[in-house]
Amino acid sequence: MKTYNPFCEEMLAELQAALGAENVWTAADKLDQYKTDEETDPKKFHLPEAVVLPASAEEVAAVVKLCNKYNVPVTVRGGGTSLADGAIPVCGGIVLLTERMNKIIEMNTEAMYMIVEAGVRTIDIQKMANEAGFLYAGDPCSAESCQIGGNLATNAGGNKAVRYGVTRNQVYCLEMVTPTGEIVEVGARLKKCSTGYCMEQLVMGSEGTLGIITKATLKLLPLAPYRFDMLAVFDEPQNAIDVVPKLIKAGVNPTSIEYMDNSYVRSTADYLDFKAAPHYEDGIYVIITVETYNEDELDLKMEQLNDLCEEAGAVDVLEADDRIWSMRRNCQESVRLISLVSLTDDIVVPVDKIADTIKKIMEIDKKYPFPVPAKINAHVGDGNLHVVLCKGDLSDEDWEKHVYDFHKEVYAYVYELGGRMAGEHGIGAKKLGYMEEFTPAGELDLMKKIKLAWDPNLILNPGKIFNM
Amino acid sequence: MKTYNPFCEEMLAELQAALGAENVWTAADKLDQYKTDEETDPKKFHLPEAVVLPASAEEVAAVVKLCNKYNVPVTVRGGGTSLADGAIPVCGGIVLLTERMNKIIEMNTEAMYMIVEAGVRTIDIQKMANEAGFLYAGDPCSAESCQIGGNLATNAGGNKAVRYGVTRNQVYCLEMVTPTGEIVEVGARLKKCSTGYCMEQLVMGSEGTLGIITKATLKLLPLAPYRFDMLAVFDEPQNAIDVVPKLIKAGVNPTSIEYMDNSYVRSTADYLDFKAAPHYEDGIYVIITVETYNEDELDLKMEQLNDLCEEAGAVDVLEADDRIWSMRRNCQESVRLISLVSLTDDIVVPVDKIADTIKKIMEIDKKYPFPVPAKINAHVGDGNLHVVLCKGDLSDEDWEKHVYDFHKEVYAYVYELGGRMAGEHGIGAKKLGYMEEFTPAGELDLMKKIKLAWDPNLILNPGKIFNM
Repeated sequence: MKTYNPFCEEMLAELQAALGAENVWTAADKLDQYKTDEETDPKKFHLPEAVVLPASAEEVAAVVKLCNKYNVPVTVRGGGTSLADGAIPVCGGIVLLTERMNKIIEMNTEAMYMIVEAGVRTIDIQKMANEAGFLYAGDPCSAESCQIGGNLATNAGGNKAVRYGVTRNQVYCLEMVTPTGEIVEVGARLKKCSTGYCMEQLVMGSEGTLGIITKATLKLLPLAPYRFDMLAVFDEPQNAIDVVPKLIKAGVNPTSIEYMDNSYVRSTADYLDFKAAPHYEDGIYVIITVETYNEDELDLKMEQLNDLCEEAGAVDVLEADDRIWSMRRNCQESVRLISLVSLTDDIVVPVDKIADTIKKIMEIDKKYPFPVPAKINAHVGDGNLHVVLCKGDLSDEDWEKHVYDFHKEVYAYVYELGGRMAGEHGIGAKKLGYMEEFTPAGELDLMKKIKLAWDPNLILNPGKIFNM
Repeated sequence: MKTYNPFCEEMLAELQAALGAENVWTAADKLDQYKTDEETDPKKFHLPEAVVLPASAEEVAAVVKLCNKYNVPVTVRGGGTSLADGAIPVCGGIVLLTERMNKIIEMNTEAMYMIVEAGVRTIDIQKMANEAGFLYAGDPCSAESCQIGGNLATNAGGNKAVRYGVTRNQVYCLEMVTPTGEIVEVGARLKKCSTGYCMEQLVMGSEGTLGIITKATLKLLPLAPYRFDMLAVFDEPQNAIDVVPKLIKAGVNPTSIEYMDNSYVRSTADYLDFKAAPHYEDGIYVIITVETYNEDELDLKMEQLNDLCEEAGAVDVLEADDRIWSMRRNCQESVRLISLVSLTDDIVVPVDKIADTIKKIMEIDKKYPFPVPAKINAHVGDGNLHVVLCKGDLSDEDWEKHVYDFHKEVYAYVYELGGRMAGEHGIGAKKLGYMEEFTPAGELDLMKKIKLAWDPNLILNPGKIFNM
């Protein structure tokens, strides 16, 4: 295991000279704010030794060069919405905030692209595009608080991936600072390219271990002006799941297909005090959104969708108004009514294996003494399941042991199906142990070789994804 | 520059033991067959020292391990259709043929994927999918003779990229043999994934320098049953090009948008003896294909397309029947009527820069004494232009000098616009010099670090993309 030097006065002075003293924080109360992200377990917290706020790629490069010089690691933090301990500086050192790099540099509606700095909030990108009649199709559930840099680093997913793909599909090119402090552009604003290695896709999803993304050129799409949202209610998970391939094959091209098990239907209705929630007692919800470029096409697809859901055995097909979407949005919050401490998983399986996976998870779950059964919501059109476990009154020790054993069983099953442990949240520090355990040695070895080749001093975000 | 050992008797014996004597060729007449690919200039030819035909990933791994042991390089050859000298063993050593790895292992129409070995012909994949009502959307113009392994290695483009993307967008995962001879899988059959580095995208497009792809899991799409092909004829390149963004923004979602300048309209009509070719004298062709999942949508889009083309200033809008497509397909062949030796370029620019680029190329071209003006056909919806120069009666020396100077001017312009020198053919050995010259040092350095980390002995396909 690599050891780092403690942060020192000389480095502080050099950082202050590079960024201005007001952009280098070392006061205890400041450091305390950056010891965690969305992580709630204090055992996972880790204090940084300094926090820096560069305003440009040049300043980021200066920070990274100093980190190499002084052998101090650096962890990048965007909106701090990681669910995988991705922004926690687990090896100490510096936390680098991207919040001062918050400019939308250009929006070109003729050529349909946008150039943004890493610290721009995702929702601001979405809004600016929408107002001009375009769509930025990246749409993580945390869009209101997360930053585009974090979306890029984790290859964030979200609600529109069925139709438009995930964050990595929305990007032309990146400006990044390499682990040794060089500013490099990877990718190009092109529809196709066979000119050397595709490094932009390598950097995206590498969770800040291969480079610090400072700028991105994003794709815009024409905004589809027509939309409807349908709620199909099922009483059997199998039927609910079976509708997914039917929609895809019929060419309906839905924007999203979201799944809530009955446990979530109940807890979100309770949380929102929505007494008239349809089929509260036993309904399983599949919410389907379709967008089109003309009204006739919308009518056609609405009819088609209705028929397909009924054929698949839906007990009810309704319009999904904002109250239904509000239920979906409040899944996470509704869990707090049940248990203060809970844990969200993020497994992903081939779409045709979802029904089996849900069944298997419920079977595994029965063996464990969690206070309530595992709750499942899913970006079901993508095969991405969020399985939530509640701690309730379990002791810390029991909780940790059961969570670990449960995950081991679930991941073993998921990997057997060709799935993976993280569909959209990343590995971070949280799943590093599982990652090392479940990833074939040859694959892990190739990743580590790239890491070492680009970051020989292991300066960027150590203690994430895998051990070096 | 790395030096390799000559092929030797010991290595021959070990190869024969690993693959069977009948699958290791060293006879002069056999070697002679693999000294070139689509390259016609004998100065670029290079004889291999041996040709091997492994039948499995395990046998490929054995070959690669022996190459490392004996310090002999290996160049992979699929269908041999490279336009960039990609299959020429420019440093000697072994040529590895994938033709015995020619099985379609599985087609799953429920889950919509296909698992194929690297040596399967692309057209066989397309046909098998079509017959089952599905689409494999990769469609390079050489589909009848190329192999999927070559498509993956070069990230081949083709005719359907506007709607479906290029080869790298059609792939879930790969089995590959690493440069040190390990068999590793990269990627997974998943709609989304944030579990470690995205290495499948790195390997695709690396032209056999980072691994030998032995197997791929490809995406299938539901086959759109309705289709029409429209020919819009223009008399101004600018108008012809302007129609592209209009189609995209209107949400027409065309499958392809192909462009032929008037010089190609004439030469292909002459070649095919198609006397009634519309607007032979001065027409510029834009061929647009639209596919839909229902008839009403087809009618809607047909009308929309017609209006958009007329608004853009088309002088004629016709159905593009097979004779028109035949003209498009025979662009390359028609050049042979004009000049036995010719050179096809493959630049790619942002879609909104195509019109400027065509103008600029014609301007640059005027300065050179080529026997006929540069001919241009284009996957214009992707910004990918094939510029063809004809040698005619020029001396070898003049031809080489003018080609070099012409390319330098064109690439300088293209890179200034954010374009690249290869949209779909790859760099191979042919453009290596230009690649080193036009790629920013920092970007090239990152590529070389990956290459060296994975292939420390520089065994795989040396002398391609960049020098080590």
